[in-house]
Amino acid sequence: MQPALDRIQRGLARRKLDALLVTQPENRRYLSGYTATDHSIAETSGILLILANGKAPYLLTDSRYELQAEAEAKGFRVKLYPRGFFVLLRRLLSSEKIKHLAFESHYFLHSTAQILEKIAREKRVGLVPLTGLVEELRLQKSGEEVARIEAAVRMNEAVFREVYQSLRSGQTEKEVAQRIENTMRAHGAEGPSFDTIVAAGPNGALPHAVPTARAIQKGEPIIIDMGLRLAGYCSDMTRTVVLGTPDSRTVAMIRLVRKAQLAGLKALKAGVSGMAVDKVARSVIEQAGHGDHFGHSLGHGVGLNVHEGPALSYRNRKQLLAGMVVTVEPGVYLPGWGGVRLENMAVVEESGCRLLNHDTTFLDL
Amino acid sequence: MQPALDRIQRGLARRKLDALLVTQPENRRYLSGYTATDHSIAETSGILLILANGKAPYLLTDSRYELQAEAEAKGFRVKLYPRGFFVLLRRLLSSEKIKHLAFESHYFLHSTAQILEKIAREKRVGLVPLTGLVEELRLQKSGEEVARIEAAVRMNEAVFREVYQSLRSGQTEKEVAQRIENTMRAHGAEGPSFDTIVAAGPNGALPHAVPTARAIQKGEPIIIDMGLRLAGYCSDMTRTVVLGTPDSRTVAMIRLVRKAQLAGLKALKAGVSGMAVDKVARSVIEQAGHGDHFGHSLGHGVGLNVHEGPALSYRNRKQLLAGMVVTVEPGVYLPGWGGVRLENMAVVEESGCRLLNHDTTFLDL
Repeated sequence: MQPALDRIQRGLARRKLDALLVTQPENRRYLSGYTATDHSIAETSGILLILANGKAPYLLTDSRYELQAEAEAKGFRVKLYPRGFFVLLRRLLSSEKIKHLAFESHYFLHSTAQILEKIAREKRVGLVPLTGLVEELRLQKSGEEVARIEAAVRMNEAVFREVYQSLRSGQTEKEVAQRIENTMRAHGAEGPSFDTIVAAGPNGALPHAVPTARAIQKGEPIIIDMGLRLAGYCSDMTRTVVLGTPDSRTVAMIRLVRKAQLAGLKALKAGVSGMAVDKVARSVIEQAGHGDHFGHSLGHGVGLNVHEGPALSYRNRKQLLAGMVVTVEPGVYLPGWGGVRLENMAVVEESGCRLLNHDTTFLDL
Repeated sequence: MQPALDRIQRGLARRKLDALLVTQPENRRYLSGYTATDHSIAETSGILLILANGKAPYLLTDSRYELQAEAEAKGFRVKLYPRGFFVLLRRLLSSEKIKHLAFESHYFLHSTAQILEKIAREKRVGLVPLTGLVEELRLQKSGEEVARIEAAVRMNEAVFREVYQSLRSGQTEKEVAQRIENTMRAHGAEGPSFDTIVAAGPNGALPHAVPTARAIQKGEPIIIDMGLRLAGYCSDMTRTVVLGTPDSRTVAMIRLVRKAQLAGLKALKAGVSGMAVDKVARSVIEQAGHGDHFGHSLGHGVGLNVHEGPALSYRNRKQLLAGMVVTVEPGVYLPGWGGVRLENMAVVEESGCRLLNHDTTFLDL
């Protein structure tokens, strides 16, 4: 049994809960090793039932996933629900004597929760909506997890370099984004970890621009924000590049954002708050008079999800812990002109951080 | 204003509801024309607020989507929520005098619904979980919708033929599936409408097989189940093909499944129940002694979602209506040997149905 599972079981016992239904796909994978997902909001590929009393947990699924569940979820009892999830759950509530049941409120549809509530009333089971119990455990990565993330970062950089070398003016943002995602798959990635952003010239002024049919041009800043998923773990990286010679304004903006990024990375270590790291990087941009043009937070955690805790933002007063993996991605966005964003990933360590990226394209002008 | 919007407004008024929050992405697109989606369970790209009193509806979103919302959602009032959705909603509940508010229970997270419930209590607004109101409207397609679905079917067939011609023994299921999805994008599709299935030999015995690293071989049945999305609308098609010469068992199975499919298509028309059509096709397979090897329903509706109503299954007693678009996809699955599934799409008409597929690869042996 994995230590993470032990910790969840102890967490449940502390809260006087008998069991937890795990529906969030990355939480399910984290606790069980089971990798299936049906990519839909209803997520029918399986649900974990973790018991607080230390007994072997269940993976509840249907016949489509039986073989995969048996092969992947070591230490779990795989149970099929040919007559539907709730028929099986009803039976397990009785046989396992579950009187207080928690579920993941942030990954449970309201309509499904209504059925669960009805059953709980009938069976006199106390129902407790929980959020973040498993996510909390996932914040600090094990050595093996960091190694997997690092492999995803390396592959992402290799894909970036390959596509960057073939970048030509006249290619559309969409074309480039599509080539990036195809190249990820050709390198063996499970797929992109989010919709690839290619935003050139004025389109770069939107931090979350969607690639358009606009052709990229020489001399303009081109934001490429891309990440992939490998063995479950994500990478996330942004470069701002220029075809031909960047003008002095672009050079100045890249230098400013890079200065902010380096300041953020220097401040990043265990014991410092997410807020404090954000502030260090932000103040570099504010001092240059561009505070209003940096409208998002400095960074976010990355792991099985491409966006997870901890946040490097003014909202996060909590101390960072060793083993957390975060992005550091300051940006400057000027309406009408475009934007510059630079994003690297790093692991928080006791006395600093370890950068996971090696690529330096257009970083140090 | 679109007729669909009128019908929703009348439906709300009949139920004594003042407004409906629309969060399901395809419902949102159907009613507003707004195409954005963030592909996450939290779906942050926007929410519709439809008013029963006939006043112009709202599209509530954030600054990332402002331009797209203004351009696409004709007749809608686009409102941004820089301080979060619930701050804006609170204001609109007052200004629009909303006292009874419905939300899409099947596309609303339990944790989000808890916040909504708290606000409703504070503002003395009655909250009504609803499911299926917009989906009900979407069942019967307009002429323009059928034309879009037909275009998606044609493109899917063109992609299939291109990949089929390049199919060779030794290629892995995964490779073929990947090439299919790349070819879809090269043809201009928005993307696959579901994860492409390529299941050869014994893998074909699982109706929902996931492509593996197994190489496809001459002589074995290869199930290819693929669909794409074009201008929002989906296609879904299955062929079972053989490299080289199929043996007599494979030929017999394909002929049997095809016979069942043709019987189903012949029975398909307005006024007949989904259950009845399923039964007609199923009895062909049962009479051949393979009833136990056809473990799924005959078909499902297709539109903005690749799986929607109506079901062609023993559960659906409702009469089919003209303008519904469905798949007809019988199959036979023999553990250890493999499977055969054949899937075409058709529009229900008053006195029969119109087949949307033209490809006949391996259908009529």
